[in-house]
Amino acid sequence: MTLEGLDAFVRSAMDDYKTQLVDLVRIPSISQSATHASELDRVADAMASLLRSYGVSADVYRRGSFPAVVGTLEVDPSAPWVMVYNHLDVQPAGEKEWVQTNPFEPIVTDEQIIGRGTTDDKGPALTIVHAIRYLHETGQLPVNVQFLYETEEESGSRSFDAFLKEYGSALQTPDSILVSDTIFEGDTPTITYKLRGLTMMVVRLETGTAGVHSGIAGGFARNPLTTLTTALGRCVDPDTGKVLVPGFYDGTEHPNDTDDTEMAIIRSVASNVDLTRFREEMGFHDSYRANSLEAILRMQHMPTLEVHGFRPEAAGTKIHPYAEAEISMRLVAGQDPYVLRDRLEAYLREVHSGITVRCEEGIRAVHTPLDSPFMAHAAEACLYGFGKSPLYVAAGGTIGAFPPLQAQFPNAPLVLIAQSLASDHYHGPNEEFRWQQAEDGMKAIAHYVHNIGNLRTAGK
Amino acid sequence: MTLEGLDAFVRSAMDDYKTQLVDLVRIPSISQSATHASELDRVADAMASLLRSYGVSADVYRRGSFPAVVGTLEVDPSAPWVMVYNHLDVQPAGEKEWVQTNPFEPIVTDEQIIGRGTTDDKGPALTIVHAIRYLHETGQLPVNVQFLYETEEESGSRSFDAFLKEYGSALQTPDSILVSDTIFEGDTPTITYKLRGLTMMVVRLETGTAGVHSGIAGGFARNPLTTLTTALGRCVDPDTGKVLVPGFYDGTEHPNDTDDTEMAIIRSVASNVDLTRFREEMGFHDSYRANSLEAILRMQHMPTLEVHGFRPEAAGTKIHPYAEAEISMRLVAGQDPYVLRDRLEAYLREVHSGITVRCEEGIRAVHTPLDSPFMAHAAEACLYGFGKSPLYVAAGGTIGAFPPLQAQFPNAPLVLIAQSLASDHYHGPNEEFRWQQAEDGMKAIAHYVHNIGNLRTAGK
Repeated sequence: MTLEGLDAFVRSAMDDYKTQLVDLVRIPSISQSATHASELDRVADAMASLLRSYGVSADVYRRGSFPAVVGTLEVDPSAPWVMVYNHLDVQPAGEKEWVQTNPFEPIVTDEQIIGRGTTDDKGPALTIVHAIRYLHETGQLPVNVQFLYETEEESGSRSFDAFLKEYGSALQTPDSILVSDTIFEGDTPTITYKLRGLTMMVVRLETGTAGVHSGIAGGFARNPLTTLTTALGRCVDPDTGKVLVPGFYDGTEHPNDTDDTEMAIIRSVASNVDLTRFREEMGFHDSYRANSLEAILRMQHMPTLEVHGFRPEAAGTKIHPYAEAEISMRLVAGQDPYVLRDRLEAYLREVHSGITVRCEEGIRAVHTPLDSPFMAHAAEACLYGFGKSPLYVAAGGTIGAFPPLQAQFPNAPLVLIAQSLASDHYHGPNEEFRWQQAEDGMKAIAHYVHNIGNLRTAGK
Repeated sequence: MTLEGLDAFVRSAMDDYKTQLVDLVRIPSISQSATHASELDRVADAMASLLRSYGVSADVYRRGSFPAVVGTLEVDPSAPWVMVYNHLDVQPAGEKEWVQTNPFEPIVTDEQIIGRGTTDDKGPALTIVHAIRYLHETGQLPVNVQFLYETEEESGSRSFDAFLKEYGSALQTPDSILVSDTIFEGDTPTITYKLRGLTMMVVRLETGTAGVHSGIAGGFARNPLTTLTTALGRCVDPDTGKVLVPGFYDGTEHPNDTDDTEMAIIRSVASNVDLTRFREEMGFHDSYRANSLEAILRMQHMPTLEVHGFRPEAAGTKIHPYAEAEISMRLVAGQDPYVLRDRLEAYLREVHSGITVRCEEGIRAVHTPLDSPFMAHAAEACLYGFGKSPLYVAAGGTIGAFPPLQAQFPNAPLVLIAQSLASDHYHGPNEEFRWQQAEDGMKAIAHYVHNIGNLRTAGK
């Protein structure tokens, strides 16, 4: 299937696209710094104006420090709804190692645009706007669209859940959610179907009110750090990296040989990984015992427990009156941080009954089933737009907005179509977005949205 | 036995004693601060002058930053030698919580002197000078005396070993060494016959050259802190506090029921300890499982392994490229820090072969046998001078100068006769020394030195 006039539309749209992207990149919408709060308002207003100029009704919701833009384009009350999620905030840019003096004054060449936020996530966000504009202006848009832009993604989207709870009823319940905030595998398009969650925990043991002289009471006074070390030391197998807390893996959907489709995908990913080179690139030489397949499973499909640090720091030979450890868990689907907290605490208390574990809500894992019909259309769209079939990939990391979105709209699959190249320097200096990716991205997204017009999940 | 004219001598000596002690305390000879280096020279010169004024030949040895004073009083070439060890440096004083504005401007009352260094160790040092002067001036001194004053005790006496190695041949080989740098148990005199040693170790595991994103490689990349926790977590039994490193206790002389004399002493100490009150006073509520006897054994007679801290501190969810732990071991007689290092490393390497353990020489334990005839004379002297039989005590802490002294003069027993009261505020604000203790101390020391004239160990 070809979309009539799409190639010509894309060619003619690129001038506006470039101008608009330059304008957006010039707004230093860094969400991690309170000094840039007004820039978040500016970028939200700019995107709302841009949507309105294309006939989309748009509002900026100001709640706390992080505004959100909601744009609504309803073509047919009986059509399905697609939600488009992107973020308008960016990482801090630093000042060094950029080819330009100011990372927010983009450099534009025939090939690409260089500047903070070009590929993460302003460029891909704008691509989607033009893809939908094409469908709309040519009378081929089979769905209603609700654009949702947040401005806190690079700070963990901590208030996004509260935003959805407050304004969720004003939003349309989507049949699917489209996101372009992930990256290619080398030069191959990807569809991310899994993201691990994340929760941080603090493990504590208190044994007194004052530091104790180890020369006076050492041997009798409990050293809380020594005991905490013993308790936490039982949690991870030093050979295999397996987490030894009873029940830790309960309820997780760990892919195995009976999941033919997914295991085939994982095997394909694993067969393309050179573990030696991966270790070199990442800067570590020591890993848990695993072949390529096991390594991919461990990094992307299985949960983790990591010890990140202990407090307080050493003070000579003093026995501290308390000790704390900071740990993290990367979560997979089926894991609840509070249940894990309880299991960890029970296990640690086998060593000492005074140990406590505090836990934050954290971010739950995301899993879009491979057999969802939206996934098939996404794969076709990648082949159409980028000229190459995509890889289905799982990612060890986390996008904070997804769990609240899934909680608010449990039936809507998250469809993550990457537009960014692996070489685009995500989060780094000289972040760039290539015009060819923008053009191909418009085509892929137009193809995808055009084809999901008959897919419903919202139960209307 | 009474010493003729001693009471009258002591009464008449107190005026000079007080004047001399005030002068010494006015010198802020803080060894932990380089800004006080010139004060160490001043205090050494002052003590050398004082000795010379009593007919003792005295020299100041300047070696590195910490001068030492050697005073020699030879009455009979055929008589035994006693070495008198004291230190002239003091703890920092701070400024708060003292009754006076300047802790180095002593307050003198009819009862006591308040100021930094009064009881630790200038007052007791000066008491010994006058006790020996009494014996010398009355023709009753049966031994030759070598006074040795160092100025680095409060900083761990790190260069004292080098001093002894360089000047040791210029010193007389003593038949015994007399020290007053310990404290009473409540108001009961003590003779300390054991001191634990101390060594610090650094345990390290390196797994890479750069921090690793736990969302990308977590589960496969080894977390060095997690593995180090597992390895160190096996070292101490969380219930009993027993060290589980194989061979850790090998060669130690742990008192047990077959050591009738020592166990009787330890039982007596234990029966006087109220563990609940001790914990309250020390500021801890949690201890390893032990009754009073076991607690005393653990704190004073058995070695320890303590984990004091881990590096680096937590940095979000990053997996660090290395982890280090700082640990200490309190040592008892029969333990060599380098042997323990090897045993610990071998044990930790059962968990991961990349773990290394660095160790410093540290301070070895001190143990003067209870059946030494010097000890019997020390006990009689306490009864004579302080009017009360002493307790034999073991201490969990450390005096840095003793191991080098024992290495240099292996046959000379260390005899530690306390002159300071437990209430004298050792190392704290309002440190004080009571004139009654000075008078009683002179009598006790005179009695002791008078009675060891026929005891030889130096083999001459």
